[in-house]
Amino acid sequence: MNLARKRGFLWSSFEIYSGVAGFFDYGPLGATLKNKVMNKWRNYYVVQEGFYEIESPTIMPEEALKASGHVDHFNDPMTECKDCLDVFRADHIIKEATGEEGEGMENQELTEIISQEKIRCPKCGGHLSHVWSYNLMFQTLIGAKGKKTGYMRPETAQGIFIPFKRLLRFFRGKLPFGVVQLGKAYRNEISPRQGVIRLREFTQAEAEIFVDPRDKTHPNFEKVAQEVLTLYPASSQETGGESIKITAQKAVDEKIVASEMLTYQLCLAHRFLMELGLSEDVLRFRQHMCTEMAHYAIDCWDVEVYTDRYGWIEVIGIADRTDFDLKSHSQHSKEDLRVFLEYPEPRVVKKLKVKANMGKFGPLFKGDAPKILEALDEIDASDVKESLEKDGTFQLELSGTIHQLTPELISFQEQEETVRGEKIYPHVIEPSYGIDRIVYSVLLHTYTVEDDRTYFRLPAEVAPVEVNVFPLVNKDDLGQTALHIRDDLRRDGIIAEDDTSGTIGRRYARSDEIGVPFAVTVDHQSLEDKTVTIRERDSQNQVRVLISDLPMTVKDLISGKINLKNFN
Amino acid sequence: MNLARKRGFLWSSFEIYSGVAGFFDYGPLGATLKNKVMNKWRNYYVVQEGFYEIESPTIMPEEALKASGHVDHFNDPMTECKDCLDVFRADHIIKEATGEEGEGMENQELTEIISQEKIRCPKCGGHLSHVWSYNLMFQTLIGAKGKKTGYMRPETAQGIFIPFKRLLRFFRGKLPFGVVQLGKAYRNEISPRQGVIRLREFTQAEAEIFVDPRDKTHPNFEKVAQEVLTLYPASSQETGGESIKITAQKAVDEKIVASEMLTYQLCLAHRFLMELGLSEDVLRFRQHMCTEMAHYAIDCWDVEVYTDRYGWIEVIGIADRTDFDLKSHSQHSKEDLRVFLEYPEPRVVKKLKVKANMGKFGPLFKGDAPKILEALDEIDASDVKESLEKDGTFQLELSGTIHQLTPELISFQEQEETVRGEKIYPHVIEPSYGIDRIVYSVLLHTYTVEDDRTYFRLPAEVAPVEVNVFPLVNKDDLGQTALHIRDDLRRDGIIAEDDTSGTIGRRYARSDEIGVPFAVTVDHQSLEDKTVTIRERDSQNQVRVLISDLPMTVKDLISGKINLKNFN
Repeated sequence: MNLARKRGFLWSSFEIYSGVAGFFDYGPLGATLKNKVMNKWRNYYVVQEGFYEIESPTIMPEEALKASGHVDHFNDPMTECKDCLDVFRADHIIKEATGEEGEGMENQELTEIISQEKIRCPKCGGHLSHVWSYNLMFQTLIGAKGKKTGYMRPETAQGIFIPFKRLLRFFRGKLPFGVVQLGKAYRNEISPRQGVIRLREFTQAEAEIFVDPRDKTHPNFEKVAQEVLTLYPASSQETGGESIKITAQKAVDEKIVASEMLTYQLCLAHRFLMELGLSEDVLRFRQHMCTEMAHYAIDCWDVEVYTDRYGWIEVIGIADRTDFDLKSHSQHSKEDLRVFLEYPEPRVVKKLKVKANMGKFGPLFKGDAPKILEALDEIDASDVKESLEKDGTFQLELSGTIHQLTPELISFQEQEETVRGEKIYPHVIEPSYGIDRIVYSVLLHTYTVEDDRTYFRLPAEVAPVEVNVFPLVNKDDLGQTALHIRDDLRRDGIIAEDDTSGTIGRRYARSDEIGVPFAVTVDHQSLEDKTVTIRERDSQNQVRVLISDLPMTVKDLISGKINLKNFN
Repeated sequence: MNLARKRGFLWSSFEIYSGVAGFFDYGPLGATLKNKVMNKWRNYYVVQEGFYEIESPTIMPEEALKASGHVDHFNDPMTECKDCLDVFRADHIIKEATGEEGEGMENQELTEIISQEKIRCPKCGGHLSHVWSYNLMFQTLIGAKGKKTGYMRPETAQGIFIPFKRLLRFFRGKLPFGVVQLGKAYRNEISPRQGVIRLREFTQAEAEIFVDPRDKTHPNFEKVAQEVLTLYPASSQETGGESIKITAQKAVDEKIVASEMLTYQLCLAHRFLMELGLSEDVLRFRQHMCTEMAHYAIDCWDVEVYTDRYGWIEVIGIADRTDFDLKSHSQHSKEDLRVFLEYPEPRVVKKLKVKANMGKFGPLFKGDAPKILEALDEIDASDVKESLEKDGTFQLELSGTIHQLTPELISFQEQEETVRGEKIYPHVIEPSYGIDRIVYSVLLHTYTVEDDRTYFRLPAEVAPVEVNVFPLVNKDDLGQTALHIRDDLRRDGIIAEDDTSGTIGRRYARSDEIGVPFAVTVDHQSLEDKTVTIRERDSQNQVRVLISDLPMTVKDLISGKINLKNFN
C-alpha cells in the first residue's frame, strides 16, 4: 500500500481537508488499472456471455428501496460511548474484544454480550449504550420542494430489477437472459477503519441472470465441467473441516453447489481472478452457512482472497436469489413482473366450470341473466363451489347489485382446457463483484520483491502503462526517434510513455516498479537498421524487432498472443 | 426518442414507481453506446494526448465545496406559487412568458420582471413569490454521528484539484500536464422538464490541463492549425452578427480565441464530434459573453449542437479558468498548491540587505548580538527600512524580548542574488464534456429515414452491437455454423449477436434499425466453400469473405482500416 500510494495507484481522498474515512482516490495509475479490470469484466460478461449492460441512476427514490427491503433491513448494529459520544459497530468491537463473531446477531443479544463481557469504549474506556439499528444508506432529498426522500443506491442490482418489463421486452420475452451493471454503490459505514477494504463509496460489477426456476442447467456447462475449484462448504465450516479441491462437475453431482447455473458462475469468477494474476493458494469459495444466508436465497458462495492484513476477504458474492426481488417489486409497484413461459407442448388440463340451470335461472333473473352468466364464466368455479358448501349461497356483485346464487340455480361440470403455458417469476442468479477489493487484491498479490528490485507483476492486459520507450541516450536523434515510436504506438491505441531521465538501468527499475510490462529501447543501432529491443518486465528477456512491426508486436504481447517470458 | 426508447437505448428511470423527473436509464443498447463514446474520449485524451485519468469520490465533504465556491454560489433563482405551492426556476418561466433571457440576472431583477410583466404560475395561474437562491447540490450526511455534511459533487473537476500535490509529484513537478476524470456529477434541478438534456444525475468527462501561465502555446498546434471551425464570437452575438468559418491558426492570430492551448481544445472537440457522426452544419463554437462568463475566467467557449426540439444546446464547455481553483483550495486548506518553476537560466536579482554597524551593535546587545544578526538576515530588508523611515525604529521580537533597532545601529546595502526560479499557481485549461448530451446528439443526428427503412447511422466504432450473424434458414447446419461464427467473433472481443427469427429481409431491417453496422449471412454456399457475406448497413453493399478471415476483417471494418461503403 505504501508503494501503491507513493507511485500514484491510490490514496485517501480529501487529504488537504484532513481526509474523510471510507473514501479513496484512484490516482493516475490506479484509475486505469481499475478501468482495465472493469473492461476485462465486460469482455467476460458482455462480449463472451452475451449479456447486456445497462446504467441506472445512483440516486433512487424511497419507494424502490422500500420494496427491495433496504429501507427496513440495510442496517448495522450500533453502540455509542456514553462518555466520548463516539459510535461503533457493535459486532466489530465485540469481535475485537472477545474474538467472538457477532455478525448476524440480534441487537438484544449484542447488548447482553457487551454488558456480560464488560466491553468498554475502545477509544476512552467509557460505558457503551444499548445496541440499536443504524441504516447504512446515504439519504438525500430530491427536488426543490425537498419533500421526496432519496438514497444513494446500496447496490447496482436494484437498477436492473426495476425496469425488468422493458428488459424482458428487449429480450423478446424469452428466458434465460442476463443483464449487467457496473457502477458506484454506497454504504454509510459507522466507522470504517480498513482502508480500501471497507469503503463508503465503492464500485460493483453485478450480473442478474434471469432463469426459468424449473431449469437451472447451463447450456455451456461442459466447457467448465473439469475446472478444479477450492470449495469451503457450509458443512465443513460447521464441523471445523477444511476446504476441498473438486471439479465443477463433481460439485454439481454431489449437490455441494445447488445448480449448474451457480457452479458455472463460480468457474467464471475463478478464471477471472486467475487471469488477473492471483494464484490458486490465495483463492477459495466459501459457502454461506444457513445462519448468514438471506432467508430467500437457495445457495450463496463468497469468493475469498487471502490477505496478510485482513485474513480472508470476500471479493465476489455468487447467489441464487430466487424470485425474491421481482416478486417484491411486483407487490410494491402493482406491476406484473412475471414472464409468460410457453410449455414445450400445449397442455390439456381439467377445469371446473359453473353451469346454470336455465329453467330456474331465466325466470328468476330475467334481463340480468346474460350478464350474470358472463360474470360467472370469469370467476374461479371452485370459489363458487366452496361458498355454496359453506354458506349455502354465493353472492355475486354486479354493478352495485348483489345476486344470491343458491344451489338449485347452478351445477358444476369438469371441462378439459388447452393451456399454452403459464406466468412465473424468473429466478435470479447473481454474481456480484467488488471491483475495489479485486484491484486491491491484484496489487497485493502481484507485488514482488526480488534481490535487486521491487515491482508489481501486473498482467499486461491490465497494466496502466503498457509500454515505455527509452532512448539509450537523449542525443544523436535517439530522443526524437523514441518520441516518434511512442506516438506511433499511441496511434494504435497503446498506452505508451517515454522517459529520458537517468541511466537506462534506473529507467528500467522505475518502469518495473509501476508494473509496465514492456520497455522499448532505442539505441544507435536503431538509427542504422530500424530495429529496437523489447524487454519483458518479469523475465527481463529482450528481443530485437523492426520498428515498423512494433505496434503489432506490442499488441500481440499485451493480448498474450505471443509471449516473451519463455523466449530466451 | 420514441424509437430509442422502444428499442432499448434509454428511458425514464423508476417507471414502475411513477418515475422521478431528471433521471434516465441507459438500456441494453444505450449503456454500451455511452461506454463506447467514453472509451473514444479516453483514446483521445488518455492514449493520444498522454493525460492520466484519476477517479475521486462522488460524495464530497462541505469544506472542499466551500473552497470551490459551490456551497455559496451554485444556485438557481427560484420562485414559488403562492396558491399551488409548486416551485419554478424564475429565469425559465420568464423566458417562457416573455422570451426574455433571464439567465445570469440578480434575484431582485427577476422579481421585478415577474411583477412588471404580471407573470403567473404556469400550472395554476396563481401569484408567484419573490425570487430566492436555491442551492443545486444534493446534500447528505457522512458517518453515523450524522454531523459531517457532504454533497454529491456538482462536477468531476474538483476531484482533480484537491489532490493536486500528489498529481504534481506524479508528474515530477513539471508543467504542463493533464489529468482527466470521467464520472457522475449531480445537480438537484428545481423542475427538470427537458428529458435527457437536463438531468439531475449526469456523466461528465473533464480534463484539467495545468499550464505555465506565461506560456499558453501548444507544442502540437501545427497539427490542428488548418482545421476550419465555425466560431460564434461574443462580439458577433452582441451585434446580432453571424457565426464565422475560420482556421484555428487565424482564430489565434486574430485573437478571437485567447490562446493556442484553448484553440487546440476546440479542434479536438470538433474532431471528436465529427467522428461521432455529427455534421458541420449542426455544430458551432459559441464564445461566452462577458455577462455570462465566470469572473475569474479568461475565455470560455461552448460547443453547441443544433436540435429541432431545444435549439442550440451546449454539449462541451472549454474554458481557461486561470489559477482560480488552485488558489482557492490553497487558501481554504492552508496547503501550498503552487509549483516551483525553474527559469531557463538562473537570474541575478538585486536585493536589499541589512548590514549591522558592529561598533555599536556588539556593545549594545552583547551576547544576544549573533542571534539578532541571524534574525535580521531572514527578514525582508525593505520592511526594516520602511519602519525606520516611518517610526524611527524597528522592533524585533526574539524569544519574547523586543529589541529596538534604531537608525544608527544599521545600514542598508544592495546585493546581487542568483534565483533559480519562482513558485507560481498554474493556470488551468478545462475541456468539459457532457456525455449524456453527446449521446443524445449522436442518436438524434444519426437517425435516418429512407424510403424503405428507418435506422440509426451510428459510426461502427460506437455501435452497441458490432455485427449480427444470420443463418439464411435455420436448418441444414446453417444455424449451428452461424453460432460458431458468432462465438469466434466474440473470442476476438467483437460484440456479436445472432438472430434466426423471420425472413432475412426482416432481420436486416431489425439490425439496421438499432444501428448494427455489419451483418454476416451464412448460406448453403458457406457450407461448401467456407465463405460468408458481409453486408454494410448504410450502403447495403455486400462482399464474400472466408470464414477464417472474418474476425480480422470485421475488426478492420469497425476500426475503419477498411471500408465497405464505397466498395461496389
